[in-house]
Amino acid sequence: MRKITPRRENLDFAFYFLGVVYLALGLVMLGLEVLSLLLGETPWGFLVGSVLGIGLGLLFRRLGDARSEPSRAEALFSLALIWLLVPLLGAVPFWVSGGMHYLDALFEAMSGFTTTGATALADFGSWGYGLFLWRSLIQWFGGVGILVLLASVLSHLAIAGRQLFMAESTGVQKEPFTPRLRVAAQSVLKVYVVLTVACAVCYALAGMPLFEAVCNALTTLPAAGFSPNPQSFAAYSPLAQWFGTLFMFLAGTNFVLQYQLFLRREPLPIVRNIEFRVYTLVVLVFSLGLAAFLMTHHQEDMNYSWSEALRHAFFNVTSLITTTGYASADFALWAPAAQAILVLAMFVGGCSGSGAGGVKVIRWLVIGALARRELLRALQPQAVLTLRVGSKVLSEDVMRSVAGFITLYVVLFGASTVALTLLENDYVLGLTASAQAIGNVGPGLGEIGPMGSFANLQPFSKLILIFEMWAGRIELIPVFLLLTPELWRRLRS
Amino acid sequence: MRKITPRRENLDFAFYFLGVVYLALGLVMLGLEVLSLLLGETPWGFLVGSVLGIGLGLLFRRLGDARSEPSRAEALFSLALIWLLVPLLGAVPFWVSGGMHYLDALFEAMSGFTTTGATALADFGSWGYGLFLWRSLIQWFGGVGILVLLASVLSHLAIAGRQLFMAESTGVQKEPFTPRLRVAAQSVLKVYVVLTVACAVCYALAGMPLFEAVCNALTTLPAAGFSPNPQSFAAYSPLAQWFGTLFMFLAGTNFVLQYQLFLRREPLPIVRNIEFRVYTLVVLVFSLGLAAFLMTHHQEDMNYSWSEALRHAFFNVTSLITTTGYASADFALWAPAAQAILVLAMFVGGCSGSGAGGVKVIRWLVIGALARRELLRALQPQAVLTLRVGSKVLSEDVMRSVAGFITLYVVLFGASTVALTLLENDYVLGLTASAQAIGNVGPGLGEIGPMGSFANLQPFSKLILIFEMWAGRIELIPVFLLLTPELWRRLRS
Ligand SMILES: [K+]
Ligand SMILES: [K+]
Repeated sequence: MRKITPRRENLDFAFYFLGVVYLALGLVMLGLEVLSLLLGETPWGFLVGSVLGIGLGLLFRRLGDARSEPSRAEALFSLALIWLLVPLLGAVPFWVSGGMHYLDALFEAMSGFTTTGATALADFGSWGYGLFLWRSLIQWFGGVGILVLLASVLSHLAIAGRQLFMAESTGVQKEPFTPRLRVAAQSVLKVYVVLTVACAVCYALAGMPLFEAVCNALTTLPAAGFSPNPQSFAAYSPLAQWFGTLFMFLAGTNFVLQYQLFLRREPLPIVRNIEFRVYTLVVLVFSLGLAAFLMTHHQEDMNYSWSEALRHAFFNVTSLITTTGYASADFALWAPAAQAILVLAMFVGGCSGSGAGGVKVIRWLVIGALARRELLRALQPQAVLTLRVGSKVLSEDVMRSVAGFITLYVVLFGASTVALTLLENDYVLGLTASAQAIGNVGPGLGEIGPMGSFANLQPFSKLILIFEMWAGRIELIPVFLLLTPELWRRLRS
Repeated sequence: MRKITPRRENLDFAFYFLGVVYLALGLVMLGLEVLSLLLGETPWGFLVGSVLGIGLGLLFRRLGDARSEPSRAEALFSLALIWLLVPLLGAVPFWVSGGMHYLDALFEAMSGFTTTGATALADFGSWGYGLFLWRSLIQWFGGVGILVLLASVLSHLAIAGRQLFMAESTGVQKEPFTPRLRVAAQSVLKVYVVLTVACAVCYALAGMPLFEAVCNALTTLPAAGFSPNPQSFAAYSPLAQWFGTLFMFLAGTNFVLQYQLFLRREPLPIVRNIEFRVYTLVVLVFSLGLAAFLMTHHQEDMNYSWSEALRHAFFNVTSLITTTGYASADFALWAPAAQAILVLAMFVGGCSGSGAGGVKVIRWLVIGALARRELLRALQPQAVLTLRVGSKVLSEDVMRSVAGFITLYVVLFGASTVALTLLENDYVLGLTASAQAIGNVGPGLGEIGPMGSFANLQPFSKLILIFEMWAGRIELIPVFLLLTPELWRRLRS
């Protein structure tokens, strides 16, 4: 162990940043402790969490240094470290007050901060308002956090093709590190606060109880998917479900385009964006296809009228394409053919620069362009063929990054699927658990369906899923780098 | 239609080559007709087939020209065309004499010539020796045919990374087209005749009935998998099963290395070959892992002793890694965990330069090297990092070709899986039918397991599978190119 421990002076930035985040979470937990006491609940987990958060936060902040400019290795290492250490702290209230083993609490917290929304909670009745609010808040923090990092760190580091997706959009790339983070955070927060409030108001107007409207709005905008209601959106009115579809659809679009649309009132950029167009088309095609199937293949207990079929098709397709993971009906009970459309949707994964997980539309477009070029090179090997997505010319670097990313995605997805199938002795569970975790989706099929729970899985399965959620959320590269000696060598030198 | 019909003068080579192949198949069918009559069977399908084959063969040969040197577009087009038109003729005996609809007969013939081994035959008792011998022979022809083309056309055209896999090995690349084909055919035939005879002798010595020993030997060496016995290798002695494992293992190795080993008695090239080493390692690890699972997870009716567990594990892992598709036990009845290992094996797919389908070991090695390089580029974007597989440096061209190939593979596999799941309303069937067809494996799981049949699938499902088998066997590129306007433009110009 000692040999690979990084020397501290290289991690000034990581420590400072972790300290700030721990301190902030500690203060939020303190607030929730007060709120819970006012409501007559006694969730001491928040007190334990806030003491740990504030104490460790102050310590880490002192160990670090705000002014240090991190190296690439340190920035990538910090990203992996923070997305692991934050859930370790965030799990404390679930562990101390939520009646969960620490592993389940960590599963819940990792699922929260990564905006996955897979739950290890089986008995929703045993939790008070405080715990459900915390469970929603960490998803909102996680969603805002990943977007801030996408806009500042990840696009700057140009990993996984990110240079393409965000570069032109924020204009903050040339500034030093800490200001860049601050500018990115401000623009993300502006968009997300506005949309979250609008979403909560719409939900409440559609008849959702106020507390659930707030919690659900907090988890809709980051495409996150935890709901305080064990029936998810099946518990709400058709109008609330249509609002859910609308806001999930927005949650799956690039926040820079949202910023231009809602705050600057410029509708052209989003309408002209090739990724947005393809995303909209995919949602329409999948939803109408699913609706047609649901209307023509009646099953026992499930005779949808055309308006029900359309509503459930649009809601659940949008939910899975954006990797939100809400459900307006228990699709784990649908016919396999209908489920196949939903599983396919999971792999699409919304637009870049959104809280959505999965591979994302733009990467599929790049991969499509790459495959087409290789086809044409078979006809004409010496030709110099330019790769385009829409009107934009792709560099070789972007193409290679995307191909590398997809490869890592397939490798981690495949290995986890096999491991989970072996551990749980169930294909559908193994395949969909793995697909939802790496894509930060939430529900799978079978016992882990939208009305089910991950509580009864083997401990080792839960560890695999925690790993997939963690790696999937931060674009895989930082986590895979932890397995290379090169990273540790650079951190030491 | 008329607009896209290629002008004939550009297809001199295609017509000539197709004519020769049709003529040869017509003569073989004539021989089988005579043999069948001598055995007292009356399979008039061979007569119809031989008349069609000889007649059309003579016609096509006259329309073509042996001396013409095909362009890249023509060579790729011819490859796709021939691998479609040959099964159309080969289906005739199954259709006229085998009691099958033409679609089922075409499924059987495509499954044969592509060395897949998936069967649409449900009632094995209704067929005579002639039909079973034809069913085995077309697999042997298909296996020899694909290797000849790999060694001559495909490696010359440098598609799908083939330039890497065969270039150094045959030394025939610089010659003109027709002699190159002839040299390649001679060396492939030398290896395959020797190994097929040896295999048949071993099978017979292990107690297999002589006719079945011959048929099974014909389908073992091309990793093809049709057996005249509906119980596949479960019908034979343990020794015959071990011989099967040995010859399937050989069938999954590069024929150039086999040539060096068996005909030149040079064992070093195969032992030093990185792909062979990894292939051997994968077979060992998967087989021992599966054996351990089978010994520790007893199920009703399936209490394997350690020697049985080892035998079934090695046999079925080797069968699926090499994409042969025989079974020594009905693994469709095993626990999902055991099946997961076998499905994973399907995607590995033997060594390049063998009759095995699937992605193949060398491409996984290239993809692994590519992913590793992209990881390291995240740390150090400006670094020039050389890709290696073993001690061999990979060119950017090879890397791009392999990435393009894998992308097409995933796209066709994914789209077919969803379509088949929708049509058959069954995941496991959809997933494994699609995986086996594109990888030219043979059996899937569930009703299409090793003791099952594809006979009861929907007609449209069979068409999808025929397409996947066809495209998968000829490295996808030639078939996908048919969908591009660029190919047709070149053929016309
Ligand atoms: K989610
Ligand atoms: K096969």
